[in-house]
Amino acid sequence: MPAKRIAVLSPIAWRTPPRQYGAWETVAGNIAEGLVARGWDVTLFATGDSVTAARLHAVVERGYEEDRSIDPKVAEYLHIAEVFEHATEFDLIHSHYDFMALAYSRLVKTPMVTTIHGFSSPRILPVYRKYHDGYFVSISNSDRLPGLNYVATVYNGIDLSLYPFQHRGGEDLVFLGRIHPDKGVHLAIEVAQLSGRRLVIAGIIQDSAYFEEQVKPHLDGAGISYIGPVDVAGKNELFARAYALLHLNTIPERFGLVLVEANAAGVPVIAMDAGSCREVIREQVTGFLVGGVGEAVRCLERVPQIERSACRQRVEQCFSVDTMVQQYERVYATVLEREAKKLE
Amino acid sequence: MPAKRIAVLSPIAWRTPPRQYGAWETVAGNIAEGLVARGWDVTLFATGDSVTAARLHAVVERGYEEDRSIDPKVAEYLHIAEVFEHATEFDLIHSHYDFMALAYSRLVKTPMVTTIHGFSSPRILPVYRKYHDGYFVSISNSDRLPGLNYVATVYNGIDLSLYPFQHRGGEDLVFLGRIHPDKGVHLAIEVAQLSGRRLVIAGIIQDSAYFEEQVKPHLDGAGISYIGPVDVAGKNELFARAYALLHLNTIPERFGLVLVEANAAGVPVIAMDAGSCREVIREQVTGFLVGGVGEAVRCLERVPQIERSACRQRVEQCFSVDTMVQQYERVYATVLEREAKKLE
Repeated sequence: MPAKRIAVLSPIAWRTPPRQYGAWETVAGNIAEGLVARGWDVTLFATGDSVTAARLHAVVERGYEEDRSIDPKVAEYLHIAEVFEHATEFDLIHSHYDFMALAYSRLVKTPMVTTIHGFSSPRILPVYRKYHDGYFVSISNSDRLPGLNYVATVYNGIDLSLYPFQHRGGEDLVFLGRIHPDKGVHLAIEVAQLSGRRLVIAGIIQDSAYFEEQVKPHLDGAGISYIGPVDVAGKNELFARAYALLHLNTIPERFGLVLVEANAAGVPVIAMDAGSCREVIREQVTGFLVGGVGEAVRCLERVPQIERSACRQRVEQCFSVDTMVQQYERVYATVLEREAKKLE
Repeated sequence: MPAKRIAVLSPIAWRTPPRQYGAWETVAGNIAEGLVARGWDVTLFATGDSVTAARLHAVVERGYEEDRSIDPKVAEYLHIAEVFEHATEFDLIHSHYDFMALAYSRLVKTPMVTTIHGFSSPRILPVYRKYHDGYFVSISNSDRLPGLNYVATVYNGIDLSLYPFQHRGGEDLVFLGRIHPDKGVHLAIEVAQLSGRRLVIAGIIQDSAYFEEQVKPHLDGAGISYIGPVDVAGKNELFARAYALLHLNTIPERFGLVLVEANAAGVPVIAMDAGSCREVIREQVTGFLVGGVGEAVRCLERVPQIERSACRQRVEQCFSVDTMVQQYERVYATVLEREAKKLE
């Protein structure tokens, strides 16, 4: 039997895989690489500067977040149209392109699976409601919209070779993520101040007013510092000096890729018990789930009780590219079976 | 032979027809009404609160410029997808939805004609270049992109009954249009100041910094006044007191619907000689084409030489809904013939 032909539709805000920030592109890229490794015939629809073992199909040269000369709306329409115009060349389309790709899905016969990386706003829900009978994958059990035709929850998987296990950590607290109130940078700062530990903050500034008002005033270059966005090497350097990763999200987390990356390196995580964190972090085994700043400070003392190897082990078992791709293979098989039945 | 079934895809920034501003929706609506009157089976894809003699197909209740709770991007995807999902029900789709509808056009067999109401930015041109072999209509000979498969230029037509001929005008200068530097409101103000005539400015404020800096300081409630956006009745009141309409656009005009509306009422127009103005205004017959403020001031003395009835007559001949719709019927016939030949 010839290899099944699959189109993976990545977002184009950033290169796939991203140089620094870009969780959706990271996951789309990991799936493409994992499928190639397992013998699928994969075409990755992504930016022209993407790096992949799959066949790359690109009509937009660079990510619109990386090249301001690109009009995001124009790029999106060109990029998404392209995969559907080539739909007959594929047995399946796997979309990571949010509600926009759904609006094309009924115009082709090729079935499409959509991984919902998060509902960015209640205003996009009408699109999901219209196309509720599509095939959907949630990235955590907690981030589901009732009424959608979910095939499975598939946790995001990371390339474990990028985040080698570090037997020993350091003494600093680390925040890694978008500088945005949703991610609770201000809460991480409070924890640092109350515990007397150093805090290193890394990530892109998505909300600059928030950064100016609630982050910058606390930066002193010693106790609390901001080092900008970091690439994989930069993350590993951070993990090397990390006592724990602080992830005190103020809204329900959808998945939390950075929790997995930290755990992979052996770094315990202190996360807010909101959304998917409880699915990603195993309480008292790979970190602690807390309800607020006070509890986070108290948990810091218990960090040495966490076995760093247990953190790594859990990622290997649950959040590797291989685990993820095997689960997606089951999703694809389910979808293709259901489609075949429709034709009977 | 049964009536041909046509889908008219209107924009959804405003209701069709718009309550006040909204040139694209006005034209789309006029075409739908005109086609119905001529026996076509017309489905108008527009906002739910639109008013039409055609069959209305709506998935977005109100224009996104009129209801800020609507996400324009979400509304656009839902609205545009809808017409293509119903494509088999139509012999032809007539799109007024800019580059976005083009990105769906190759996914259906129904031919689509796109009226290009203007190229809003060079950044949208890649979409037109990709779909250059579609069927295009320009709204003036001057607003064309080389390399596109143009079928014709069809001038916009207005419903003449909305703008009754007024035998006599008044003494004021009138500016009607978006408050935006492109429309040269500041130049109209200069003309008023130099000529000592009153100026009434009407239209939506699209560029509020421009309004604050270059319009508001000159408003004195007497000589130069701003009355906000106006509906059809408001336009007719303005035309009743108009000595001339000033339209000193600073970039090439694409068509200039307001020039036609003023002329229909018998109002002479002083327009910048840029873009389509030379196609709409007949020099010394329905107004004057000028190169700048000085020339505009000098032309004011010659306004009484313009016969108001000649202004009306030209609109009746060239810019009526009927003329426009007859020309579009020829466009549709051409497109359907070419499509039939493709199938031979």
